[in-house]
Amino acid sequence: MNNKNKSQTPFELTILGSSSALPTSDRYPTAQVLNILGRFFLIDCGEGTQIQLRRQKIGFGKIKHIFISHLHGDHYFGLIGLISTFNLLGLKTDIHIYSPSELKDLIQPQLNFIKGEMKVNLIFHPLNFKKLQKIYSDKRVEVFSFPVKHSIPTSGFLFKEIQKQPNIKKEAIQKYNIPIAKIKDIKAGADLTTESGKIIQNKTLTTPPPKPRSYAFCTDTAYHEPIIDIIKGVDLLYHESTFPEEMKDFAKKTLHSTATDAAKIAKLAGVKKLIIGHFSARYNDASLFEKEARTIFENTDAAEDGRTYKVKSSS
Amino acid sequence: MNNKNKSQTPFELTILGSSSALPTSDRYPTAQVLNILGRFFLIDCGEGTQIQLRRQKIGFGKIKHIFISHLHGDHYFGLIGLISTFNLLGLKTDIHIYSPSELKDLIQPQLNFIKGEMKVNLIFHPLNFKKLQKIYSDKRVEVFSFPVKHSIPTSGFLFKEIQKQPNIKKEAIQKYNIPIAKIKDIKAGADLTTESGKIIQNKTLTTPPPKPRSYAFCTDTAYHEPIIDIIKGVDLLYHESTFPEEMKDFAKKTLHSTATDAAKIAKLAGVKKLIIGHFSARYNDASLFEKEARTIFENTDAAEDGRTYKVKSSS
Repeated sequence: MNNKNKSQTPFELTILGSSSALPTSDRYPTAQVLNILGRFFLIDCGEGTQIQLRRQKIGFGKIKHIFISHLHGDHYFGLIGLISTFNLLGLKTDIHIYSPSELKDLIQPQLNFIKGEMKVNLIFHPLNFKKLQKIYSDKRVEVFSFPVKHSIPTSGFLFKEIQKQPNIKKEAIQKYNIPIAKIKDIKAGADLTTESGKIIQNKTLTTPPPKPRSYAFCTDTAYHEPIIDIIKGVDLLYHESTFPEEMKDFAKKTLHSTATDAAKIAKLAGVKKLIIGHFSARYNDASLFEKEARTIFENTDAAEDGRTYKVKSSS
Repeated sequence: MNNKNKSQTPFELTILGSSSALPTSDRYPTAQVLNILGRFFLIDCGEGTQIQLRRQKIGFGKIKHIFISHLHGDHYFGLIGLISTFNLLGLKTDIHIYSPSELKDLIQPQLNFIKGEMKVNLIFHPLNFKKLQKIYSDKRVEVFSFPVKHSIPTSGFLFKEIQKQPNIKKEAIQKYNIPIAKIKDIKAGADLTTESGKIIQNKTLTTPPPKPRSYAFCTDTAYHEPIIDIIKGVDLLYHESTFPEEMKDFAKKTLHSTATDAAKIAKLAGVKKLIIGHFSARYNDASLFEKEARTIFENTDAAEDGRTYKVKSSS
C-alpha cells in the first residue's frame, strides 16, 4: 500500500489528555480524538481540550461528534469552552453530543448566556447505561456505548469500521467477461456460472476486503469482566489504569482500575494493543504502570499526551 | 534590604494566561495570581488555570479570593474545574468570589451536581459596575473594583497596600526616653515635648514608612479615559492590548484596546510599569505589540505566561 492510500484510510487515535481528576504539570485530563477515515470523533473533553486540539493542529471544524463517558469534571469541563470557540469561529454546523442526559442541564445556563451568539446547533443524544447500544452509524463506521463500572453512570465506547464487501479482481472481470448484473451477487459471495456452464468459485474472482478495524475506550471503570465480550479482539483498547497494583484496595474503593486490572482485561479480551491512561497525580512516572501491565499483557503502552496511535489497514 | 526581608514583603504578579478568547498553542486565556504579603489573589480564571497554578507551583490552598472581571468564557471557564479540585483536595475553607452576580447561576447546576462532595464554602460577592467600590480590605491590603468599557459589564481591579505608619527610630526612643503612652501620637505625626520642655520634631524621631505598592488590572476594555484617575500612579498596570494599532477600527468595534491605547492610558495615568496582554490569536509574536506600546510608554512588557513581575518595597 502506498502512502497515498494510507492517508486515505486513517484509523488513528490521538491522546489529548491522559491524567485523572487532579491537575498535573505534564498531562491534561481525559480527551482524545479518533480519526476513522476522516471522521474526527472527540472522546471526552476535559479542561484544556481546545488548547490541545490547537497544539495537535486538529481543525475545530472537523469535529462533529463528541462522546462524553460520564459527568466527573475531568471528563467534560472543557466542553463549554470548546462550544464557545466553535461559536467564536462562526461554525454553522450540527454538533452531536453523546452523553449522560444530565449534561445538557449542567451547561444550559452557560449556553443561554451565549445564546445570542450561538451559531452551532447542538444535538444531545442521551446515553443508555443499562446495555450495549448502537449510538452512531454511517456507511463505513459504527459506534456503540456500553456500561462500565464506576461511581456514577459511565459509558465505554466501541468504534468499528463496517465490514466491506470483497473486491472483484480486475483480471477476473476481463477473463470471465463478468456481466455488470452479476457484480452484486459475486460481491455478496456467489460463484459465477460462465456461458459455457463452467462454475468459477467466488474466491477465484475476489480479493478479501480489509479486516474492519476497531477501538474501545474504557474509562473510568473498575475491573469489570462483562465488558470483555463487547471489546473482544479490538485492535486498540484504551483502558484506565488510575493506580498501580500496590493501591488495589483504594482502586476498588474508588471504582478505578490498576495497571494489572487493565492488562488482565486486555488479555482476556484478546485485544491487539492496550493503551493505559488516567494516571493518578500521585505518580510522576507512567513507566511504572507500563511495566506492571506488560508483565501480563506485553503489547501495552502508557498513554502520552500528544501521541498518535495508528491502526494500519490489513489490505 | 536583605533577601529575608524581601521574601517577607512580596508584591508579585504571576501571569498564568495572557491570550484572548480563541485558544493558542502557547498562551492560556486570562488568569493571574497577585501575591501581596502572602495573600494570593486569583484574578480571572480562564480554562486551564488550575494546570497553570500547578506548573507555577502555587498551592491551591493559598487561594481564598477570586476576582472575575466579566463573564466572557475566556475569563471564567476554568473556575468550575478549580472549585472541583479544591473539593477533591478536601479543602475545607471559605472561598470568596468577586464577580458579576450572574456567575453563581451560570455554574450552579454544576455545583449542585458535586454538592454531595462539596467541602469548600463559596461566598459570592456581586460586583457593582456603576462606580469605584472597595470590595476587600484587611489590615494591610485593600481591593477596589471599577467599571471599564466592554461589550458586557466588566470590572477593572485595583489592589493597594495600605499606607503604614512611620516607624519610630530605636535610637530616638533611647535618646529622648519616649514614654510608651506617646508612641501612638508620634506614629500619627505628633512632635515630642521632652521633660525639659524641648520640642523634638516628628521627622527627627521617625523613619518614613514604605510607600504603599499598587497594581491595576484592566481587561477587557476599550480605550477608556475615566479609569485614569483611578489607576493613577500605580506601580504596575496590566492593560489589555488585544490588537495592534493597524486594527484599531476592529478594536473599537469589539470594545477592545490596541497596544497604542494601552500605552496612552499608562502614560496619562503616570504608572511605573505597563504589562500588556490579552493578545489576539491572529498574532504569533507579542513583540509586535510591545514595540508599538514602547514608542509611547517605554517601560512596557508584553506578558508571558509563567512570568512573575515583582514590585520592590521602597523601604
